[in-house]
Amino acid sequence: MDISQGLAALARSGDVLFLVWGAVLVFSMHAGFAFLEAGTVRRKNVVNAFTKIIVDWAFSTVAYFFVGFPIAYGISFLVPAAQLQGANQGFSLVRFFFMLTFAAAVPAIISGGIAERAKFIPQAIAGGIIVGLASPFCEGLVWGQFNLLGQPTAALATSFGAPFHDYAGSVVVHAMGGWLALPAMMILGPRIGRWVHGRSNPLPMHSIPFISLGSWLLMIGWFGFNVGSAGGLQNISGLVAVNSLLALVGGALAALIAAKGESVALHNGALAGLIAICAGSDV
Amino acid sequence: MDISQGLAALARSGDVLFLVWGAVLVFSMHAGFAFLEAGTVRRKNVVNAFTKIIVDWAFSTVAYFFVGFPIAYGISFLVPAAQLQGANQGFSLVRFFFMLTFAAAVPAIISGGIAERAKFIPQAIAGGIIVGLASPFCEGLVWGQFNLLGQPTAALATSFGAPFHDYAGSVVVHAMGGWLALPAMMILGPRIGRWVHGRSNPLPMHSIPFISLGSWLLMIGWFGFNVGSAGGLQNISGLVAVNSLLALVGGALAALIAAKGESVALHNGALAGLIAICAGSDV
Amino acid sequence: MDISQGLAALARSGDVLFLVWGAVLVFSMHAGFAFLEAGTVRRKNVVNAFTKIIVDWAFSTVAYFFVGFPIAYGISFLVPAAQLQGANQGFSLVRFFFMLTFAAAVPAIISGGIAERAKFIPQAIAGGIIVGLASPFCEGLVWGQFNLLGQPTAALATSFGAPFHDYAGSVVVHAMGGWLALPAMMILGPRIGRWVHGRSNPLPMHSIPFISLGSWLLMIGWFGFNVGSAGGLQNISGLVAVNSLLALVGGALAALIAAKGESVALHNGALAGLIAICAGSDV
Repeated sequence: MDISQGLAALARSGDVLFLVWGAVLVFSMHAGFAFLEAGTVRRKNVVNAFTKIIVDWAFSTVAYFFVGFPIAYGISFLVPAAQLQGANQGFSLVRFFFMLTFAAAVPAIISGGIAERAKFIPQAIAGGIIVGLASPFCEGLVWGQFNLLGQPTAALATSFGAPFHDYAGSVVVHAMGGWLALPAMMILGPRIGRWVHGRSNPLPMHSIPFISLGSWLLMIGWFGFNVGSAGGLQNISGLVAVNSLLALVGGALAALIAAKGESVALHNGALAGLIAICAGSDV
Repeated sequence: MDISQGLAALARSGDVLFLVWGAVLVFSMHAGFAFLEAGTVRRKNVVNAFTKIIVDWAFSTVAYFFVGFPIAYGISFLVPAAQLQGANQGFSLVRFFFMLTFAAAVPAIISGGIAERAKFIPQAIAGGIIVGLASPFCEGLVWGQFNLLGQPTAALATSFGAPFHDYAGSVVVHAMGGWLALPAMMILGPRIGRWVHGRSNPLPMHSIPFISLGSWLLMIGWFGFNVGSAGGLQNISGLVAVNSLLALVGGALAALIAAKGESVALHNGALAGLIAICAGSDV
Repeated sequence: MDISQGLAALARSGDVLFLVWGAVLVFSMHAGFAFLEAGTVRRKNVVNAFTKIIVDWAFSTVAYFFVGFPIAYGISFLVPAAQLQGANQGFSLVRFFFMLTFAAAVPAIISGGIAERAKFIPQAIAGGIIVGLASPFCEGLVWGQFNLLGQPTAALATSFGAPFHDYAGSVVVHAMGGWLALPAMMILGPRIGRWVHGRSNPLPMHSIPFISLGSWLLMIGWFGFNVGSAGGLQNISGLVAVNSLLALVGGALAALIAAKGESVALHNGALAGLIAICAGSDV
């Protein structure tokens, strides 16, 4: 193998590692969703919350594997395993995993929003349909969000000549994503934000420690979510990481100030701050 | 330094990062074992469960460092630190760490299986002996599992000329591992699986949230376990990651279906699904 | 782009990934601080503990972004985003994030030490001042610690010609850091260690599981802390990872032996072992 091929091989391996790193972090956010919901609901619904999140994840994976991802990317996985592995070390499969973690977040967020109010099986099936059919929309969210963060898409043109045809195809997603991200955020934002309103009409929360644990898992995983959106190692951006960090901190401080006078709110300041980052993490 | 050397140096660094990433993920599975066991036992044994896991880890590390790893690989660490660091940036040491996380999982799993029934010190010593002397067997498990996942070992021959002689030596492990993995799974599987039977004869479980937390930590860390088994960055495989994911989801769905009619089982569906992946994660 | 440029670009991306990986791990240690403190205090102060850690983090980020990091490195972030992203994919920003996770650990550790005894807002402001003005000192801690671990700084001279001028500037920190690290450890060590003394005069701890969770999060994140201190991927060291591991285990075993005869101490052996690693993780 000559040096040029060696470099291409190493770049390919680096891309797979980068996306697996990101996917595992975003996957761990589902544990965060579980604990956030379990901590927020009444004690009798705690076990149900844990059950829902894992079942949602299972339905989402199946729907996205067989329907959503093929629709979005024109890549079907119903081929021999050797072909899947192929020349790019399973990069398409890892990209599926990474994109799935995004798509599956939608029913997980909705699940929190409608906690204690929906029937189990219908909600799980609805989640599967959302993930299976809303995937092109999710894709817009993903790459659009990335675009909003100021990552210079032009850099793609001058980037190292990596042979990832799937990835090159998502340049179109970049170009389209900017304006798709806005309504997506408008839809997603309020659903999480309803917990803030929930504090005004306080519900009997089960456990502040669980809420804190869930929030921390979400905060930690968020860096995989945003940084991983570069799609390939060569486009990784420190700016995205620090923008996410500052948005997180800005949200926490805003919540601290807004809740200054109230003792209950101050005790819940950590949670409110964590939730506030959702709206601001990409501006 | 010329370009060829620069490329080799970067590949070496990438290998170390890859294995450290994997080792830290698998290390975090021990927190998962701790919470899984703590959630499952009766309240009076919770503190004991946490104590056992960390002591087991300590005994395992010592046994594997001084006995297990040297036996398995013929590499002793009783040399000056400068030599350990050597030409490959401590890759051998990181490989020790990664393999240790696998070896140490054996007593952790057994610990869950015999929870509330074994004396503390004898169990810790037995764990050390298992890890110290069962390491060649564990190695077979590790690399065998990797082999079963369809990673083309032939790719080693054509891979970038990385100077990791230790790694090259484990090709033999690849070749031998396939049939060693099967009995290993047969031994390991039922020990975890007994929790499923435990549901049939229900024990007074301490905390579903702890069980859920432990299960999530195990699921998350599993990706380090399976993906990291490539051993070096150049062999990283997206197929392994997604096979693991699909096995996880398949197990969860099987548990959901099997437990359809029972309300208690449905509440525990999340847990059963998580446990079900253990048997299926490599097929 | 020719091969030489391609290699430099890949090395740059690898550095960003390496530091983001480390920063996210050390960031997750703050969840560990939160649970360690929440588990240790009396039940009435649990929510307060969670609130404090996230507010401390927010104040630390602002203070370090605007004051601490610029003082320490002469790099101000009050420039256009495009310039920040610049030619090195935001490496300076990621380095800020990584160094912040270190600096912010100081008030988090102090917070644990003075838990239940300090007023909320003054403590948060004091934390911000510490992080903002103590940053050159923290820097000495960081790079000094790294130096103590035996990482050959000479390797920098012969390392691949990476264009990270910021990083090269920290060679001076390496040279200065060795003797700064000692008093820093003397200051930091006892604050955590006071929990060990706390066991002799036992306080009514709220939750052993929370303490265990916090300890595990700290142990896991510690590998990001120590390994990430290499600063760049090309300097990653397996020796650092395994030294950290052995220090962790040595601390756990010392605690086990020291507490042999007491049943309460044995139940708390896991925690004592985890805490014991703080002093020994870099020797």
